[in-house]
Amino acid sequence: MTNEELKIHCIKLLEKRGVQISDITELVYDLQLKYVPTLTKQTCEDAVLRVLAKREAHYAILTGIELDMLAEKKMLSEPLQTLIQSDYPLYGIDEILVLSICNVYGSIGLTNFGYIDKLKPGIIGKVDKLGKVSGECHTFMDDIIGAIAAAAASSVAHNSVL
Amino acid sequence: MTNEELKIHCIKLLEKRGVQISDITELVYDLQLKYVPTLTKQTCEDAVLRVLAKREAHYAILTGIELDMLAEKKMLSEPLQTLIQSDYPLYGIDEILVLSICNVYGSIGLTNFGYIDKLKPGIIGKVDKLGKVSGECHTFMDDIIGAIAAAAASSVAHNSVL
Amino acid sequence: MTNEELKIHCIKLLEKRGVQISDITELVYDLQLKYVPTLTKQTCEDAVLRVLAKREAHYAILTGIELDMLAEKKMLSEPLQTLIQSDYPLYGIDEILVLSICNVYGSIGLTNFGYIDKLKPGIIGKVDKLGKVSGECHTFMDDIIGAIAAAAASSVAHNSVL
Amino acid sequence: MTNEELKIHCIKLLEKRGVQISDITELVYDLQLKYVPTLTKQTCEDAVLRVLAKREAHYAILTGIELDMLAEKKMLSEPLQTLIQSDYPLYGIDEILVLSICNVYGSIGLTNFGYIDKLKPGIIGKVDKLGKVSGECHTFMDDIIGAIAAAAASSVAHNSVL
Repeated sequence: MTNEELKIHCIKLLEKRGVQISDITELVYDLQLKYVPTLTKQTCEDAVLRVLAKREAHYAILTGIELDMLAEKKMLSEPLQTLIQSDYPLYGIDEILVLSICNVYGSIGLTNFGYIDKLKPGIIGKVDKLGKVSGECHTFMDDIIGAIAAAAASSVAHNSVL
Repeated sequence: MTNEELKIHCIKLLEKRGVQISDITELVYDLQLKYVPTLTKQTCEDAVLRVLAKREAHYAILTGIELDMLAEKKMLSEPLQTLIQSDYPLYGIDEILVLSICNVYGSIGLTNFGYIDKLKPGIIGKVDKLGKVSGECHTFMDDIIGAIAAAAASSVAHNSVL
Repeated sequence: MTNEELKIHCIKLLEKRGVQISDITELVYDLQLKYVPTLTKQTCEDAVLRVLAKREAHYAILTGIELDMLAEKKMLSEPLQTLIQSDYPLYGIDEILVLSICNVYGSIGLTNFGYIDKLKPGIIGKVDKLGKVSGECHTFMDDIIGAIAAAAASSVAHNSVL
Repeated sequence: MTNEELKIHCIKLLEKRGVQISDITELVYDLQLKYVPTLTKQTCEDAVLRVLAKREAHYAILTGIELDMLAEKKMLSEPLQTLIQSDYPLYGIDEILVLSICNVYGSIGLTNFGYIDKLKPGIIGKVDKLGKVSGECHTFMDDIIGAIAAAAASSVAHNSVL
């Protein structure tokens, strides 16, 4: 797959798991509006798509979503199956996995990620809840979305500096 | 200096710059109470002191506070003097420097740090404001406190698991 | 599983995948001997076992080895299956996953990890080669071993300071 | 300062401290030649200059070199003065500080950095030695150069993939 094909594949995978680009765009807009009052949704969407063009994002998305789907199908060995399926709070590999996404536009991505990951606004809260009440598993998915939004917010921040 | 002497030195340095152990204890308590309903302030203070016994914490505290103090005395070269004195939002080295503190009790420290660093509760908001209105500079200090609190919260979380 | 049970489970998993504690002990000994001339193998083994008692190590070991085994059984979706099975050099998630192990004894673990990961001494070279010539997959395994050795070397370094 | 001015300022600062772009280019060439047999020095220099155009690099360079120069002038407080002046092996802040440079082209930068930081080839060994025998201090400088070379090597690796 070329980089462009990989990007399209990842966007389809996110959609298949219940998340639209527009959902992530909303997160970025809400994160950055207070710093950039003239911010538009289009600027945020462009930033999300820039993050989704990065190799670091592709590999983290492919790996994390695969683990979520395997957990849904109960195809992981124990005790990993239970750790991922139950979104065990101390597991932490979900947060580590997406660090490479957070960092693509510098260290300020980390702060945005931590904030989003804790408060779980918008689509992240929805996905997190789905993973807890239904037969679905989104242990990695919420961190993936949070990291994409955090990196996109950093990109917006960098570009809005004169 | 022995490790114990270094710990005492760092605690005095934090106090000299306006932050008491009890201020950091409050942050940890507020972060973890909802996850550990039986949490006590003593447990939080013990965790803060465990973090402050770590070499990683000592070196980050010594280096960050030194840069803050040098900026206050206008002893840094330009453009670094202006970047640190003005707490320039994209500078990012303050956040990088304290990563080693965040990580002493695993990756969940990162999420807590990002959350605290963004919302600036309690003493962090006070210190951040002081750095902006007075002749003082606390560009590194607020991240140092946030990272100590985040790592202590992770330690509390680990210990409260059966 | 208690922490102690998880430790034993992880040691067995490493052995099942072809790596003995004594293999990792050798790596640590070779890394640190020039800095600590009085170093013994026992000191190195103790350090390896300290790392293997850490939660951060358990979760990274469980997750990485699971992905290696799933790739061997061709049970991953494409293009992830090919990326992991071929140990694609730019994949990078294997290196990210073990960062939490590297960091358990501070940032000097990172340098040791990079060094080992590049030179692939001892058991790491053997495992890496096995993954390339046989039907086995050890894409995550070599990074896991390297990270355990690197963290253990950091622990030895910290303890050997007066 | 504009980003372009900051880049020129940082290149001058590196030169003032004894390191030419061509020295870093050599490191990148030696790191990547075995993976990319058709590699040219020009490709490596272009990659070094791409890294030096990044904001993450500027801030780490400015901060690290400032601390080295302050240590040379004995203008830091104790015990930080001694830690930096003696390049104390467990200090570790020098390695943390440059992580943001290592990561600008993804996680494979980390491995290259660890390798270089340990073996100290070419200019890094020279600078490291100067810091130990003369009145100069290059505690941060060798890590800065290593990180720039490691990130540039990652950029070369990414670009050489079809």
